[in-house]
Amino acid sequence: MKTARRPGPTERVRVREWQGDGVTVREDRLATEEPLEIRLSWPDAPARGFVTTMRTPGHDFALATGLAYSEGVFDSIDNVRTVAYCTDVNLLPEQEYNVVSIDLAGPPIRWSDRTLAMTSACGVCGKQSIDAVFDIGAAPQPVEPTIDARLARSLPDRLREAQRIFDSTGGLHAAGLFDADGTPLVVREDIGRHNAVDKVVGQRLLDRARIAPAALVVSGRLGFEIVQKAAVARIPVIVSVGAASSLAARVAETFGVCLASFVRGERMVVLSHPERLR
Amino acid sequence: MKTARRPGPTERVRVREWQGDGVTVREDRLATEEPLEIRLSWPDAPARGFVTTMRTPGHDFALATGLAYSEGVFDSIDNVRTVAYCTDVNLLPEQEYNVVSIDLAGPPIRWSDRTLAMTSACGVCGKQSIDAVFDIGAAPQPVEPTIDARLARSLPDRLREAQRIFDSTGGLHAAGLFDADGTPLVVREDIGRHNAVDKVVGQRLLDRARIAPAALVVSGRLGFEIVQKAAVARIPVIVSVGAASSLAARVAETFGVCLASFVRGERMVVLSHPERLR
Repeated sequence: MKTARRPGPTERVRVREWQGDGVTVREDRLATEEPLEIRLSWPDAPARGFVTTMRTPGHDFALATGLAYSEGVFDSIDNVRTVAYCTDVNLLPEQEYNVVSIDLAGPPIRWSDRTLAMTSACGVCGKQSIDAVFDIGAAPQPVEPTIDARLARSLPDRLREAQRIFDSTGGLHAAGLFDADGTPLVVREDIGRHNAVDKVVGQRLLDRARIAPAALVVSGRLGFEIVQKAAVARIPVIVSVGAASSLAARVAETFGVCLASFVRGERMVVLSHPERLR
Repeated sequence: MKTARRPGPTERVRVREWQGDGVTVREDRLATEEPLEIRLSWPDAPARGFVTTMRTPGHDFALATGLAYSEGVFDSIDNVRTVAYCTDVNLLPEQEYNVVSIDLAGPPIRWSDRTLAMTSACGVCGKQSIDAVFDIGAAPQPVEPTIDARLARSLPDRLREAQRIFDSTGGLHAAGLFDADGTPLVVREDIGRHNAVDKVVGQRLLDRARIAPAALVVSGRLGFEIVQKAAVARIPVIVSVGAASSLAARVAETFGVCLASFVRGERMVVLSHPERLR
């Protein structure tokens, strides 16, 4: 009989803390990191492995859905029949909550039988990486005023308010989707910042709720991959607490996304499409 | 004729900065993010793609060498004949500095014809992920006093002193290898923290210099992957400014690595093998 322990977002550990000259032994909590294998199936096709990613358990169906969507596996949630933990009898109990199967209504739109590369990039220069985002199905958005500039600057504070786990581990990234009036639509956390974004997008898909127009807010730095995910989901504004990379800025410029970096207190450094800020 | 522009660690961009009610347009620098494709070849075998990773250009040979080593492709630098930018005539100029070939003296020790998974993990539970680290060739180290606890706490400050690019972009992670007396052996930066660690380990391999015993210092958070790389390179101590994950702590415990997290000022939270700290 299987008696799977469903992993939680944090794990209890015993730590030894130095503080000045003193050393204390106490309990602490670490953000859980476990692999998640995502499998795909569709009619008349056996289930097959799509990708394995390290993640913090919780909202696994949203993560799997968002990741497959951002890689172009499907372009509408109507083409997803079920998302479920795998019931493969060969799985050990400790694996049971680490395998998620997405059952599609038809073959994937884009499918490569190789495991995804370490990042989603398959080009070997920035230009090809941008072309790959087009290949996934992203298209440039018309640029129009989307959100008030002062409100955009308040979003990282609103994201922090919406986080609950952060204080207990200090180890989780957060991502949130916010309406143009600053209302949080969904906030998710993960040890990987790209996973947090996948959980946000995937949750909206599973809820059959609108993703765009809205602002995506991330707690850390901004690389290529996160802007790619926003471009595929047609999210028009990204607000980040940290710095952005050169390629992140170029992808945002190409796809009509306003990229705001270093959004802290009264400061905000906008790298692309400031016309979106009122 | 090829006229490749060799990409630098930062790129100049024009930004729009909000500060209070004022908006200024100015020049800024972003950390460069470009894909790097790593290819492997050995006698009587055609070159083939090993992995593509997004990275900040600079020390690309060290990155390729360190990454291949940490994945178990070779276990001694004596088995590497050359590491070079690819001279494939089919490459466009802008690709030329984004493809590195490692020519091995013989077949790879561990080789999978699939592209690496998004992270190095191939298991679907934490235990299997740890088993995968054994498979790469890592072995538990005997645990003995390695470094003075007070000195360990000073290493993040020493790492920051040794960073030069950080101030100009705010977008780069750093990793450094330090001797037991606090002397920096090598410090490297990258937009990906795992890349920074690969650059550190790879540089020491290319220099045919000792990697261990020494302390690895990283500027950010600590996940499974970084501890895996330290375990393969037999690095006995990891010092991190940020939080560590549950799996990072378990891998460190298993392989005899002392993991110190939240090392800031007078504070240090040790998650495994405090016996290594004097």
